[in-house]
Amino acid sequence: MLPYVILVEPQMAENVGMAARAMMNCGLENMRLVRPREDHLSDKALAASSGAGEILHNAQVFASVREAIADLNWVAATTARHRDQTKTVMNADHAAEQMCELTASGNKCGIMFGPERTGLRNEDVCLADVIINVPLNPKHCSLNLSQAVLLVGYEFYKTQIEIPRAQLVTNHTVPAEKEKVLLFCNYLEDKLDDCGNFKIGEKREKMIINLRNIFTRGQMTEQELNTLYGVVNHLSKKK
Amino acid sequence: MLPYVILVEPQMAENVGMAARAMMNCGLENMRLVRPREDHLSDKALAASSGAGEILHNAQVFASVREAIADLNWVAATTARHRDQTKTVMNADHAAEQMCELTASGNKCGIMFGPERTGLRNEDVCLADVIINVPLNPKHCSLNLSQAVLLVGYEFYKTQIEIPRAQLVTNHTVPAEKEKVLLFCNYLEDKLDDCGNFKIGEKREKMIINLRNIFTRGQMTEQELNTLYGVVNHLSKKK
Repeated sequence: MLPYVILVEPQMAENVGMAARAMMNCGLENMRLVRPREDHLSDKALAASSGAGEILHNAQVFASVREAIADLNWVAATTARHRDQTKTVMNADHAAEQMCELTASGNKCGIMFGPERTGLRNEDVCLADVIINVPLNPKHCSLNLSQAVLLVGYEFYKTQIEIPRAQLVTNHTVPAEKEKVLLFCNYLEDKLDDCGNFKIGEKREKMIINLRNIFTRGQMTEQELNTLYGVVNHLSKKK
Repeated sequence: MLPYVILVEPQMAENVGMAARAMMNCGLENMRLVRPREDHLSDKALAASSGAGEILHNAQVFASVREAIADLNWVAATTARHRDQTKTVMNADHAAEQMCELTASGNKCGIMFGPERTGLRNEDVCLADVIINVPLNPKHCSLNLSQAVLLVGYEFYKTQIEIPRAQLVTNHTVPAEKEKVLLFCNYLEDKLDDCGNFKIGEKREKMIINLRNIFTRGQMTEQELNTLYGVVNHLSKKK
Protein backbone atom coordinates (compact mmCIF):
# COMPACT_ATOMS: atom_id res chain seq x y z
CA MET A 1 0.00 0.00 0.00
CA LEU A 2 1.52 3.31 -1.12
CA PRO A 3 1.68 6.16 1.39
CA TYR A 4 -1.27 8.58 1.59
CA VAL A 5 -0.66 12.23 0.86
CA ILE A 6 -2.82 14.23 3.26
CA LEU A 7 -3.35 17.90 2.46
CA VAL A 8 -4.67 19.69 5.53
CA GLU A 9 -6.89 22.68 4.75
CA PRO A 10 -5.35 23.50 1.39
CA GLN A 11 -6.41 27.00 0.32
CA MET A 12 -6.07 27.08 -3.47
CA ALA A 13 -7.59 24.53 -5.85
CA GLU A 14 -4.63 25.00 -8.23
CA ASN A 15 -2.26 23.93 -5.49
CA VAL A 16 -4.27 20.77 -4.89
CA GLY A 17 -4.11 20.08 -8.62
CA MET A 18 -0.37 20.69 -8.77
CA ALA A 19 0.12 18.47 -5.75
CA ALA A 20 -1.75 15.71 -7.60
CA ARG A 21 0.58 16.17 -10.55
CA ALA A 22 3.62 15.95 -8.27
CA MET A 23 2.17 12.79 -6.71
CA MET A 24 1.78 11.19 -10.10
CA ASN A 25 5.36 12.20 -10.97
CA CYS A 26 6.40 10.15 -7.98
CA GLY A 27 4.11 7.18 -8.48
CA LEU A 28 1.84 8.10 -5.55
CA GLU A 29 -1.91 7.63 -5.95
CA ASN A 30 -3.72 8.16 -2.68
CA MET A 31 -4.74 11.71 -1.82
CA ARG A 32 -6.69 12.73 1.25
CA LEU A 33 -8.01 16.24 1.84
CA VAL A 34 -8.95 17.75 5.18
CA ARG A 35 -11.42 20.65 4.85
CA PRO A 36 -10.19 21.96 1.48
CA ARG A 37 -11.26 25.60 1.05
CA GLU A 38 -11.96 25.28 -2.67
CA ASP A 39 -13.43 22.53 -4.86
CA HIS A 40 -10.68 20.07 -5.69
CA LEU A 41 -12.61 18.96 -8.78
CA SER A 42 -12.95 22.44 -10.24
CA ASP A 43 -11.66 23.21 -13.72
CA LYS A 44 -8.77 25.13 -12.17
CA ALA A 45 -7.73 22.13 -10.10
CA LEU A 46 -8.04 19.68 -12.98
CA ALA A 47 -6.10 21.94 -15.33
CA ALA A 48 -3.32 22.37 -12.77
CA SER A 49 -3.14 18.61 -12.27
CA SER A 50 -1.91 18.31 -15.85
CA GLY A 51 -3.11 14.78 -16.46
CA ALA A 52 -3.39 13.63 -12.86
CA GLY A 53 -7.16 14.16 -12.69
CA GLU A 54 -7.68 10.58 -11.63
CA ILE A 55 -5.92 11.28 -8.34
CA LEU A 56 -8.25 14.25 -7.74
CA HIS A 57 -11.34 12.20 -8.61
CA ASN A 58 -10.29 9.45 -6.22
CA ALA A 59 -9.32 11.84 -3.41
CA GLN A 60 -11.11 11.30 -0.11
CA VAL A 61 -12.34 14.33 1.83
CA PHE A 62 -12.38 14.42 5.63
CA ALA A 63 -13.65 16.85 8.21
CA SER A 64 -10.65 16.54 10.50
CA VAL A 65 -7.05 15.37 10.61
CA ARG A 66 -8.07 12.79 13.13
CA GLU A 67 -10.52 11.19 10.70
CA ALA A 68 -8.06 11.45 7.82
CA ILE A 69 -5.43 9.43 9.68
CA ALA A 70 -7.80 7.12 11.57
CA ASP A 71 -6.98 3.94 9.60
CA LEU A 72 -3.26 4.64 9.15
CA ASN A 73 -0.45 2.98 11.10
CA TRP A 74 2.26 5.59 10.69
CA VAL A 75 2.01 9.31 10.00
CA ALA A 76 4.59 11.96 9.28
CA ALA A 77 4.09 15.71 9.53
CA THR A 78 6.00 17.93 7.14
CA THR A 79 7.11 21.23 8.56
CA ALA A 80 9.79 23.76 7.80
CA ARG A 81 9.48 25.83 10.97
CA HIS A 82 10.99 24.67 14.23
CA ARG A 83 8.35 23.19 16.50
CA ASP A 84 8.64 23.21 20.20
CA GLN A 85 7.65 19.58 20.39
CA THR A 86 9.48 16.48 21.50
CA LYS A 87 9.42 14.55 18.28
CA THR A 88 11.81 12.77 15.97
CA VAL A 89 12.76 15.00 13.06
CA MET A 90 13.81 13.10 9.95
CA ASN A 91 15.28 14.20 6.70
CA ALA A 92 13.03 13.38 3.79
CA ASP A 93 15.31 10.63 2.51
CA HIS A 94 15.46 8.86 5.85
CA ALA A 95 11.70 9.13 6.25
CA ALA A 96 11.27 7.71 2.76
CA GLU A 97 13.35 4.68 3.63
CA GLN A 98 11.32 4.17 6.76
CA MET A 99 8.04 4.38 4.82
CA CYS A 100 9.42 1.97 2.28
CA GLU A 101 10.07 -0.61 5.01
CA LEU A 102 6.80 0.06 6.78
CA THR A 103 4.63 -0.21 3.69
CA ALA A 104 6.49 -3.34 2.58
CA SER A 105 5.48 -4.98 5.83
CA GLY A 106 1.81 -4.04 5.44
CA ASN A 107 1.59 -0.72 7.25
CA LYS A 108 -0.52 2.14 5.96
CA CYS A 109 1.51 5.32 6.04
CA GLY A 110 0.52 8.95 5.59
CA ILE A 111 2.34 12.23 5.09
CA MET A 112 0.59 15.43 6.20
CA PHE A 113 1.11 18.78 4.52
CA GLY A 114 -0.30 21.96 6.06
CA PRO A 115 -2.09 24.98 4.59
CA GLU A 116 -0.04 27.11 2.18
CA ARG A 117 0.35 30.19 4.35
CA THR A 118 0.69 28.79 7.84
CA GLY A 119 1.74 25.16 7.68
CA LEU A 120 0.40 22.51 10.01
CA ARG A 121 -0.96 23.51 13.38
CA ASN A 122 0.89 22.26 16.43
CA GLU A 123 -2.13 20.17 17.41
CA ASP A 124 -1.93 18.37 14.07
CA VAL A 125 1.84 17.93 14.21
CA CYS A 126 1.57 16.25 17.60
CA LEU A 127 -0.54 13.47 16.04
CA ALA A 128 2.32 12.40 13.79
CA ASP A 129 4.90 9.72 14.51
CA VAL A 130 7.69 11.86 13.14
CA ILE A 131 8.37 15.26 11.66
CA ILE A 132 9.77 15.29 8.16
CA ASN A 133 12.13 18.12 7.48
CA VAL A 134 13.29 18.64 3.94
CA PRO A 135 16.86 19.90 4.11
CA LEU A 136 16.87 23.29 2.40
CA ASN A 137 18.58 26.66 2.69
CA PRO A 138 17.55 27.80 6.19
CA LYS A 139 17.46 31.41 4.99
CA HIS A 140 14.91 30.60 2.32
CA CYS A 141 13.17 27.31 2.95
CA SER A 142 9.57 28.17 2.11
CA LEU A 143 8.23 25.85 -0.55
CA ASN A 144 4.90 25.91 -2.23
CA LEU A 145 2.63 23.01 -1.46
CA SER A 146 3.24 21.04 -4.64
CA GLN A 147 7.00 21.40 -4.31
CA ALA A 148 6.91 20.02 -0.79
CA VAL A 149 4.83 17.08 -2.04
CA LEU A 150 7.24 16.63 -4.93
CA LEU A 151 10.39 16.48 -2.78
CA VAL A 152 8.97 14.05 -0.25
CA GLY A 153 7.37 11.96 -3.00
CA TYR A 154 10.60 11.95 -4.97
CA GLU A 155 12.52 10.56 -2.03
CA PHE A 156 9.91 7.85 -1.64
CA TYR A 157 9.96 7.05 -5.34
CA LYS A 158 13.71 6.57 -5.18
CA THR A 159 13.24 3.86 -2.58
CA GLN A 160 10.78 2.00 -4.83
CA ILE A 161 12.96 1.50 -7.84
CA GLU A 162 16.27 -0.03 -8.65
CA ILE A 163 18.06 1.96 -11.26
CA PRO A 164 21.73 2.35 -11.99
CA ARG A 165 23.05 5.53 -10.43
CA ALA A 166 25.05 6.24 -13.55
CA GLN A 167 25.56 4.42 -16.80
CA LEU A 168 26.94 5.09 -20.22
CA VAL A 169 23.97 4.94 -22.58
CA THR A 170 25.20 3.57 -25.88
CA ASN A 171 21.93 2.90 -27.71
CA HIS A 172 22.51 0.48 -30.61
CA THR A 173 26.28 0.27 -30.15
CA VAL A 174 28.28 -1.14 -27.22
CA PRO A 175 31.32 -0.09 -25.23
CA ALA A 176 34.31 -1.47 -27.07
CA GLU A 177 36.41 -4.27 -25.65
CA LYS A 178 39.81 -3.11 -24.46
CA GLU A 179 41.67 -4.90 -27.23
CA LYS A 180 39.71 -2.93 -29.82
CA VAL A 181 40.50 0.36 -28.10
CA LEU A 182 44.18 -0.55 -27.99
CA LEU A 183 44.18 -1.62 -31.63
CA PHE A 184 42.88 1.80 -32.48
CA CYS A 185 45.56 3.40 -30.29
CA ASN A 186 48.21 1.34 -32.10
CA TYR A 187 46.75 2.39 -35.41
CA LEU A 188 46.91 6.04 -34.44
CA GLU A 189 50.41 5.67 -33.04
CA ASP A 190 51.60 4.04 -36.28
CA LYS A 191 50.11 6.86 -38.28
CA LEU A 192 51.81 9.37 -36.05
CA ASP A 193 55.12 7.56 -36.48
CA ASP A 194 54.57 7.66 -40.23
CA CYS A 195 54.02 11.36 -40.33
CA GLY A 196 56.89 12.18 -38.03
CA ASN A 197 54.97 13.25 -34.95
CA PHE A 198 57.23 11.22 -32.68
CA LYS A 199 60.52 12.60 -33.91
CA ILE A 200 61.68 13.36 -30.40
CA GLY A 201 62.05 9.88 -28.96
CA GLU A 202 61.83 10.73 -25.31
CA LYS A 203 58.50 12.49 -25.80
CA ARG A 204 57.06 9.55 -27.69
CA GLU A 205 56.44 7.38 -24.68
CA LYS A 206 54.83 10.17 -22.67
CA MET A 207 52.62 11.21 -25.55
CA ILE A 208 51.44 7.66 -26.11
CA ILE A 209 50.43 7.48 -22.48
CA ASN A 210 48.60 10.81 -22.77
CA LEU A 211 46.76 9.66 -25.87
CA ARG A 212 45.78 6.34 -24.35
CA ASN A 213 44.40 8.16 -21.32
CA ILE A 214 42.19 10.26 -23.58
CA PHE A 215 40.74 7.23 -25.31
CA THR A 216 40.28 5.08 -22.23
CA ARG A 217 38.74 7.67 -19.95
CA GLY A 218 35.55 8.11 -21.91
CA GLN A 219 34.77 4.42 -22.46
CA MET A 220 34.65 4.50 -26.27
CA THR A 221 31.95 2.57 -28.05
CA GLU A 222 32.57 0.43 -31.10
CA GLN A 223 30.79 2.96 -33.28
CA GLU A 224 32.93 5.76 -31.93
CA LEU A 225 36.08 3.78 -32.65
CA ASN A 226 34.90 3.41 -36.25
CA THR A 227 34.31 7.15 -36.36
CA LEU A 228 37.81 7.76 -35.04
CA TYR A 229 39.37 5.35 -37.56
CA GLY A 230 37.66 7.36 -40.27
CA VAL A 231 38.92 10.60 -38.80
CA VAL A 232 42.51 9.35 -38.63
CA ASN A 233 42.33 7.95 -42.14
CA HIS A 234 40.97 11.12 -43.58
CA LEU A 235 43.37 13.37 -41.75
CA SER A 236 46.35 11.29 -42.74
CA LYS A 237 45.55 10.56 -46.33
CA LYS A 238 48.04 11.76 -48.84
CA LYS A 239 47.15 14.91 -50.68
CA MET B 1 32.11 28.03 -6.59
CA LEU B 2 28.49 26.86 -6.62
CA PRO B 3 27.12 25.28 -9.81
CA TYR B 4 25.56 27.56 -12.39
CA VAL B 5 21.92 26.99 -13.29
CA ILE B 6 21.60 27.59 -17.03
CA LEU B 7 18.09 28.05 -18.38
CA VAL B 8 18.13 27.64 -22.13
CA GLU B 9 15.45 29.64 -23.94
CA PRO B 10 12.97 29.73 -21.07
CA GLN B 11 9.58 30.76 -22.39
CA MET B 12 7.70 32.20 -19.42
CA ALA B 13 9.04 34.90 -17.10
CA GLU B 14 7.12 33.34 -14.20
CA ASN B 15 8.97 30.10 -14.69
CA VAL B 16 12.29 31.90 -14.55
CA GLY B 17 11.16 33.57 -11.34
CA MET B 18 10.02 30.29 -9.83
CA ALA B 19 13.30 28.68 -10.86
CA ALA B 20 15.13 31.47 -9.00
CA ARG B 21 13.03 30.72 -5.94
CA ALA B 22 13.87 27.02 -6.20
CA MET B 23 17.56 27.91 -6.53
CA MET B 24 17.46 29.99 -3.40
CA ASN B 25 15.68 27.14 -1.60
CA CYS B 26 18.71 25.04 -2.45
CA GLY B 27 21.40 27.60 -1.69
CA LEU B 28 22.23 28.14 -5.37
CA GLU B 29 22.99 31.67 -6.53
CA ASN B 30 24.30 31.72 -10.07
CA MET B 31 21.71 31.85 -12.83
CA ARG B 32 22.50 32.07 -16.51
CA LEU B 33 19.89 32.60 -19.20
CA VAL B 34 20.26 31.79 -22.86
CA ARG B 35 17.91 33.82 -25.08
CA PRO B 36 15.03 34.10 -22.58
CA ARG B 37 11.81 34.85 -24.47
CA GLU B 38 10.45 37.21 -21.82
CA ASP B 39 12.04 39.79 -19.54
CA HIS B 40 13.41 38.00 -16.49
CA LEU B 41 13.23 41.23 -14.50
CA SER B 42 9.56 41.85 -15.21
CA ASP B 43 7.10 42.26 -12.37
CA LYS B 44 5.75 38.78 -13.15
CA ALA B 45 9.17 37.20 -12.82
CA LEU B 46 10.03 39.06 -9.63
CA ALA B 47 6.69 38.21 -8.05
CA ALA B 48 7.12 34.54 -8.92
CA SER B 49 10.62 34.51 -7.45
CA SER B 50 9.06 35.11 -4.04
CA GLY B 51 12.05 36.81 -2.45
CA ALA B 52 14.76 35.52 -4.77
CA GLY B 53 14.88 38.72 -6.83
CA GLU B 54 18.60 39.06 -6.19
CA ILE B 55 19.23 35.92 -8.23
CA LEU B 56 17.24 37.39 -11.11
CA HIS B 57 19.05 40.72 -10.88
CA ASN B 58 22.40 38.98 -10.92
CA ALA B 59 21.47 36.58 -13.72
CA GLN B 60 23.72 36.71 -16.78
CA VAL B 61 22.11 36.61 -20.21
CA PHE B 62 23.82 34.94 -23.16
CA ALA B 63 23.09 34.68 -26.85
CA SER B 64 24.04 31.02 -27.11
CA VAL B 65 24.62 27.91 -25.05
CA ARG B 66 28.21 27.93 -26.17
CA GLU B 67 28.79 31.36 -24.63
CA ALA B 68 26.89 30.40 -21.50
CA ILE B 69 29.17 27.45 -20.84
CA ALA B 70 32.40 28.90 -22.25
CA ASP B 71 34.18 29.37 -18.91
CA LEU B 72 32.83 26.22 -17.25
CA ASN B 73 34.76 23.00 -16.76
CA TRP B 74 31.92 20.54 -16.40
CA VAL B 75 28.38 20.72 -17.71
CA ALA B 76 25.33 18.54 -17.23
CA ALA B 77 22.23 18.48 -19.42
CA THR B 78 18.91 17.66 -17.80
CA THR B 79 16.54 15.71 -19.96
CA ALA B 80 13.60 13.42 -19.42
CA ARG B 81 13.36 12.06 -22.96
CA HIS B 82 15.63 9.36 -24.25
CA ARG B 83 18.38 10.78 -26.44
CA ASP B 84 20.09 8.84 -29.18
CA GLN B 85 23.51 9.91 -27.94
CA THR B 86 26.40 8.04 -26.39
CA LYS B 87 26.62 9.78 -23.07
CA THR B 88 26.71 8.92 -19.40
CA VAL B 89 23.27 9.23 -17.83
CA MET B 90 23.33 9.93 -14.12
CA ASN B 91 20.66 10.04 -11.50
CA ALA B 92 20.28 13.46 -9.93
CA ASP B 93 21.78 12.31 -6.65
CA HIS B 94 24.86 10.84 -8.27
CA ALA B 95 25.33 13.93 -10.43
CA ALA B 96 24.99 16.09 -7.33
CA GLU B 97 27.75 14.13 -5.63
CA GLN B 98 29.93 14.53 -8.67
CA MET B 99 29.34 18.29 -8.78
CA CYS B 100 30.06 18.50 -5.07
CA GLU B 101 33.43 16.87 -5.65
CA LEU B 102 34.20 18.89 -8.77
CA THR B 103 33.32 22.25 -7.27
CA ALA B 104 35.28 21.41 -4.12
CA SER B 105 38.37 20.93 -6.27
CA GLY B 106 37.96 24.25 -8.05
CA ASN B 107 35.92 23.33 -11.12
CA LYS B 108 33.12 25.53 -12.41
CA CYS B 109 30.07 23.38 -13.05
CA GLY B 110 26.83 24.13 -14.84
CA ILE B 111 23.45 22.43 -15.17
CA MET B 112 21.43 23.13 -18.32
CA PHE B 113 17.64 23.07 -18.39
CA GLY B 114 15.79 23.29 -21.69
CA PRO B 115 12.73 25.24 -22.79
CA GLU B 116 9.49 24.32 -21.04
CA ARG B 117 7.75 22.66 -23.96
CA THR B 118 10.55 20.95 -25.81
CA GLY B 119 13.52 20.46 -23.53
CA LEU B 120 17.11 20.83 -24.65
CA ARG B 121 18.06 20.38 -28.30
CA ASN B 122 20.35 17.50 -29.23
CA GLU B 123 23.08 19.90 -30.27
CA ASP B 124 23.00 21.42 -26.80
CA VAL B 125 22.92 18.03 -25.05
CA CYS B 126 26.04 16.89 -26.90
CA LEU B 127 28.03 19.73 -25.33
CA ALA B 128 27.46 18.35 -21.86
CA ASP B 129 29.72 15.98 -19.96
CA VAL B 130 26.75 13.98 -18.69
CA ILE B 131 23.00 13.77 -18.87
CA ILE B 132 21.10 14.13 -15.61
CA ASN B 133 17.96 12.11 -15.37
CA VAL B 134 15.68 12.63 -12.38
CA PRO B 135 14.14 9.27 -11.53
CA LEU B 136 10.37 9.71 -11.74
CA ASN B 137 7.32 7.72 -12.71
CA PRO B 138 7.99 6.91 -16.37
CA LYS B 139 4.28 7.17 -17.13
CA HIS B 140 4.16 10.73 -15.90
CA CYS B 141 7.58 12.30 -15.66
CA SER B 142 6.94 15.77 -17.05
CA LEU B 143 8.01 18.41 -14.55
CA ASN B 144 7.67 22.12 -14.83
CA LEU B 145 10.92 24.04 -15.10
CA SER B 146 11.11 25.18 -11.50
CA GLN B 147 10.41 21.67 -10.22
CA ALA B 148 13.26 20.28 -12.29
CA VAL B 149 15.55 22.98 -10.91
CA LEU B 150 14.29 22.23 -7.41
CA LEU B 151 14.95 18.49 -7.56
CA VAL B 152 18.45 18.83 -9.00
CA GLY B 153 19.27 21.71 -6.65
CA TYR B 154 17.91 19.77 -3.69
CA GLU B 155 20.21 16.85 -4.42
CA PHE B 156 23.13 19.26 -4.65
CA TYR B 157 22.20 20.94 -1.41
CA LYS B 158 22.20 17.57 0.34
CA THR B 159 25.79 16.97 -0.72
CA GLN B 160 27.03 20.17 0.83
CA ILE B 161 27.42 18.44 4.15
CA GLU B 162 29.34 15.54 2.58
CA ILE B 163 32.99 14.92 1.84
CA PRO B 164 34.50 14.55 -1.66
CA ARG B 165 34.90 10.89 -2.61
CA ALA B 166 36.53 11.00 -6.02
CA GLN B 167 37.93 13.51 -8.43
CA LEU B 168 39.79 13.61 -11.69
CA VAL B 169 43.49 13.87 -10.81
CA THR B 170 45.04 16.34 -13.21
CA ASN B 171 48.39 17.09 -11.50
CA HIS B 172 50.05 20.14 -13.04
CA THR B 173 47.41 20.74 -15.71
CA VAL B 174 43.75 21.68 -15.32
CA PRO B 175 40.48 20.65 -16.93
CA ALA B 176 40.03 22.85 -19.98
CA GLU B 177 37.36 25.49 -20.16
CA LYS B 178 34.57 24.57 -22.54
CA GLU B 179 35.46 27.23 -25.08
CA LYS B 180 38.88 25.70 -25.46
CA VAL B 181 37.42 22.27 -26.00
CA LEU B 182 35.02 23.65 -28.59
CA LEU B 183 37.79 25.55 -30.35
CA PHE B 184 39.61 22.26 -30.68
CA CYS B 185 36.44 20.60 -32.02
CA ASN B 186 36.09 23.39 -34.59
CA TYR B 187 39.70 22.95 -35.55
CA LEU B 188 39.23 19.23 -36.05
CA GLU B 189 35.98 19.75 -37.96
CA ASP B 190 37.66 22.25 -40.29
CA LYS B 191 40.46 19.80 -40.93
CA LEU B 192 37.95 17.08 -41.65
CA ASP B 193 36.12 19.38 -44.05
CA ASP B 194 39.44 20.12 -45.75
CA CYS B 195 40.22 16.48 -46.27
CA GLY B 196 36.76 15.56 -47.46
CA ASN B 197 35.62 13.50 -44.51
CA PHE B 198 32.23 15.22 -44.52
CA LYS B 199 31.41 14.60 -48.13
CA ILE B 200 27.99 13.21 -47.28
CA GLY B 201 26.23 16.29 -45.97
CA GLU B 202 23.55 14.59 -43.92
CA LYS B 203 26.11 12.55 -42.03
CA ARG B 204 28.15 15.64 -41.20
CA GLU B 205 25.88 16.93 -38.46
CA LYS B 206 25.54 13.56 -36.77
CA MET B 207 29.25 12.93 -36.90
CA ILE B 208 30.02 16.33 -35.40
CA ILE B 209 27.73 15.49 -32.52
CA ASN B 210 29.42 12.10 -32.10
CA LEU B 211 32.86 13.70 -32.10
CA ARG B 212 31.89 16.39 -29.63
CA ASN B 213 30.49 13.74 -27.33
CA ILE B 214 33.84 11.99 -27.41
CA PHE B 215 35.73 15.13 -26.47
CA THR B 216 33.30 16.41 -23.86
CA ARG B 217 32.68 13.15 -22.06
CA GLY B 218 36.16 12.71 -20.69
CA GLN B 219 36.68 16.25 -19.38
CA MET B 220 39.80 17.08 -21.41
CA THR B 221 42.63 18.91 -19.71
CA GLU B 222 44.48 21.79 -21.32
CA GLN B 223 47.52 19.61 -21.81
CA GLU B 224 45.48 16.93 -23.52
CA LEU B 225 43.98 19.47 -25.88
CA ASN B 226 47.48 20.55 -26.83
CA THR B 227 48.34 16.93 -27.45
CA LEU B 228 45.27 16.53 -29.63
CA TYR B 229 46.10 19.64 -31.66
CA GLY B 230 49.48 18.12 -32.33
CA VAL B 231 47.90 14.85 -33.35
CA VAL B 232 45.51 16.51 -35.78
CA ASN B 233 48.27 18.69 -37.22
CA HIS B 234 50.55 15.79 -37.78
CA LEU B 235 47.90 13.55 -39.20
CA SER B 236 46.67 16.20 -41.57
CA LYS B 237 49.92 17.67 -42.77
CA LYS B 238 50.61 17.45 -46.45
CA LYS B 239 52.98 14.73 -47.50
